[in-house]
Amino acid sequence: MTKRVAVIGAGPSGLAQLRAFQSASEKGEAIPEVVCFEKQSNWGGLWNYTWRTGVDENGEPVHCSMYRYLWTNGPKEGLEFADYSFEEHFGKQIASYPPRAVMFDYIEGRVLKAGVRDWIRFSTVVRWVDFDEATGLFTITLHDMEADRVYKEQFDHVICASGHFSSPNVPEYPGFEEFNGRIVHAHDFRDAREFSGKDVLVLGASYSAEDIGSQCWKYGAKSVTTAYRSAPMGFNWPDNWEEKPALQKVEGMTAHFADGSTKDVDAIILCTGYRHYFPFLPDDLRLKTANRLATADLWKGVVYVHNPKMFYLGMQDQWFTFNMFDAQAWYVRDIILGKIEVPADKQALMADVAEREAREEASDDVKYAIKYQGAYVKELIAETDYPSFDVDGACEAFFEWKAHKAENIMGFRDNCYKSVITGTMAPVHHTPWKDALDDSMEVYLQN
Amino acid sequence: MTKRVAVIGAGPSGLAQLRAFQSASEKGEAIPEVVCFEKQSNWGGLWNYTWRTGVDENGEPVHCSMYRYLWTNGPKEGLEFADYSFEEHFGKQIASYPPRAVMFDYIEGRVLKAGVRDWIRFSTVVRWVDFDEATGLFTITLHDMEADRVYKEQFDHVICASGHFSSPNVPEYPGFEEFNGRIVHAHDFRDAREFSGKDVLVLGASYSAEDIGSQCWKYGAKSVTTAYRSAPMGFNWPDNWEEKPALQKVEGMTAHFADGSTKDVDAIILCTGYRHYFPFLPDDLRLKTANRLATADLWKGVVYVHNPKMFYLGMQDQWFTFNMFDAQAWYVRDIILGKIEVPADKQALMADVAEREAREEASDDVKYAIKYQGAYVKELIAETDYPSFDVDGACEAFFEWKAHKAENIMGFRDNCYKSVITGTMAPVHHTPWKDALDDSMEVYLQN
Repeated sequence: MTKRVAVIGAGPSGLAQLRAFQSASEKGEAIPEVVCFEKQSNWGGLWNYTWRTGVDENGEPVHCSMYRYLWTNGPKEGLEFADYSFEEHFGKQIASYPPRAVMFDYIEGRVLKAGVRDWIRFSTVVRWVDFDEATGLFTITLHDMEADRVYKEQFDHVICASGHFSSPNVPEYPGFEEFNGRIVHAHDFRDAREFSGKDVLVLGASYSAEDIGSQCWKYGAKSVTTAYRSAPMGFNWPDNWEEKPALQKVEGMTAHFADGSTKDVDAIILCTGYRHYFPFLPDDLRLKTANRLATADLWKGVVYVHNPKMFYLGMQDQWFTFNMFDAQAWYVRDIILGKIEVPADKQALMADVAEREAREEASDDVKYAIKYQGAYVKELIAETDYPSFDVDGACEAFFEWKAHKAENIMGFRDNCYKSVITGTMAPVHHTPWKDALDDSMEVYLQN
Repeated sequence: MTKRVAVIGAGPSGLAQLRAFQSASEKGEAIPEVVCFEKQSNWGGLWNYTWRTGVDENGEPVHCSMYRYLWTNGPKEGLEFADYSFEEHFGKQIASYPPRAVMFDYIEGRVLKAGVRDWIRFSTVVRWVDFDEATGLFTITLHDMEADRVYKEQFDHVICASGHFSSPNVPEYPGFEEFNGRIVHAHDFRDAREFSGKDVLVLGASYSAEDIGSQCWKYGAKSVTTAYRSAPMGFNWPDNWEEKPALQKVEGMTAHFADGSTKDVDAIILCTGYRHYFPFLPDDLRLKTANRLATADLWKGVVYVHNPKMFYLGMQDQWFTFNMFDAQAWYVRDIILGKIEVPADKQALMADVAEREAREEASDDVKYAIKYQGAYVKELIAETDYPSFDVDGACEAFFEWKAHKAENIMGFRDNCYKSVITGTMAPVHHTPWKDALDDSMEVYLQN
């Protein structure tokens, strides 16, 4: 086995890929040389929190989109690793919506156990990737930021696991140029206490808007106003939280909305989403897709149809996360190991994509979407040795979560769910989320 | 003339290069094909103001380091274009410290007159540059952000004019990770009104610290504290402005300084400088230099000694700016046109650099430094047809400016100086700087 495989990114997807190969090696299989390139100085991807915003210590766009007081916005029972349970890591079952420091610890625990840290070249930016038809090899141009040295290496396969929640989509509205308050995208939002006592306008109606608005509310914002373009979130908001239709313009410090109403605001937080962004890839390797369950141009959601030696992990819109990345990583591993065959006919690859798209588009029901992605996870797991788990049970946890949010948007994190890996029920957390201002790991684990 | 020349960046340096070639063409000379690549959607470089921070609408690091209420921090009489005076542009002489909107208009005026806008490919990011020894050509990989298309083109020369005040140097201090206020680098500072009523800590003791602190003071900060590492700025500060020795750490919202004193602050603004940063250049083309007058590895301050087909503009620390960029651009143009010969012996090139370094290091006196750079401008101008001007007179304006700052740091911009291009004295501005809260072009020009 003399193949060389490049993994771009050491976040949850890239680490899943390292663990997948390590798992095969542990079982005595011959594996290729796997080299993971990570631009940050530590692993964890988005979960590697930093106070930095804008560009990092090396001048590269900051990868982290996490904010200081983030807790998972879905139950941990939907994302648990099938090969490494929360109970194995923490020595006990923990509550269902861990803060980021707890999640980072869990993610790191598995790969520390696997011993794959030295497969990763940290502080190394992938500058460019080229594919040579003649040799069938990829050439990657790399920038070692510590040595400030640029070099090239060749690989048989490239697995792009750089994520798609790092490059913000930042729209401009009339009046932004003259607004005297702060305008910040969710990507650069860090500490909700900065907005204590302020009237905050949050643009957007998806997860970031809901959660960042909730953070600001929890840490003492004077008021939260969220503005939607298509539909309100419609939760039972606290008294000082108002949903407005689309922002039209800003004049001075006054926001004007589509219904003619106005609101004076101190800050505008853009929860306007992220973009799939690969500044290191040429046209013939670069995925262009909307943020959806059936990603464009990926056979089985992972093989790039225009060059099947190139793979992408985790590029889907996500109900399932860590365990889906695992399912994908094990699948890609087995393609590279020759255990799973990719059809040689490009039409067949594209037909698979078309079928997934049509099936996704068949319904806009949320439960349908969750089941759709659950079925995808099952489909991949069935073909590898990734530990089988109760995917339908995970779907049930998602359904319950949705119901809990509808009941009490500021209280849904006080609920608990049953692990589909160990069968254990999570304990009720010692403090309601809205009162748990100190969310350090030490405090969170005091259950 | 079938040569192709690439200019990277359409800021003051890049635009000077276009104007230099256009000027030769206007005089009947054959010029190469000149293509300028600009990642922003408009020209002006740093002077192209945007409310955006972090990454831009295309996911690229925002180039702009300007803040909303920036006025030039040196007299305009030190930077006036020798071929395009302020009087020619505005139809009258104007006051000596124009706000950024006025400066942008002036910069744009010259290149609009020259008619070089269609030499520029906007919203085009230079992804990578390679030099092929065999062909003697550069291959540039370009990303057209509007079409989302990557392509390559070949050039005989590359002139890097991408600036060195865009990639922030962002140090970390103990406690930053837990600080509950805002931490922002000068690069992402925009509207001083955001800090009205706040206790602001400014780290640094150079131009950004002085000017951003002054902005915050002017627009109503409760207090300004600046912290220096080597020496205080030592100006006669307002009562609510204090200079402290180096920051040691932050605990909660409290900053601790090297003299044991503390200060509770709401925000920390890092005026900690910028780095020469060229993420699109390999080791054999990438300039590595400190921010100094005698830049490393540049013969005559512009020719890259390790590959004399590659040029850099404006990479020096700067007393002189626009007119120095012009002097460099005309000089580089004449090298490319074969009118000025670059020594073939690399040792000769490096000896020139060493001589400049030694001469810079001979004194740390400020007047010496200003004269040193003035002499450099004269040296280049003497060899081209760039209009000769009274460089010593410009130096005198800098000397006066230094004295005016020492007299009254919040009032130095109320002084006026004589143009060395037209000989006209600037009018006294209608409103003292500290009271001129509206600094739009319309208001500024009401003299």
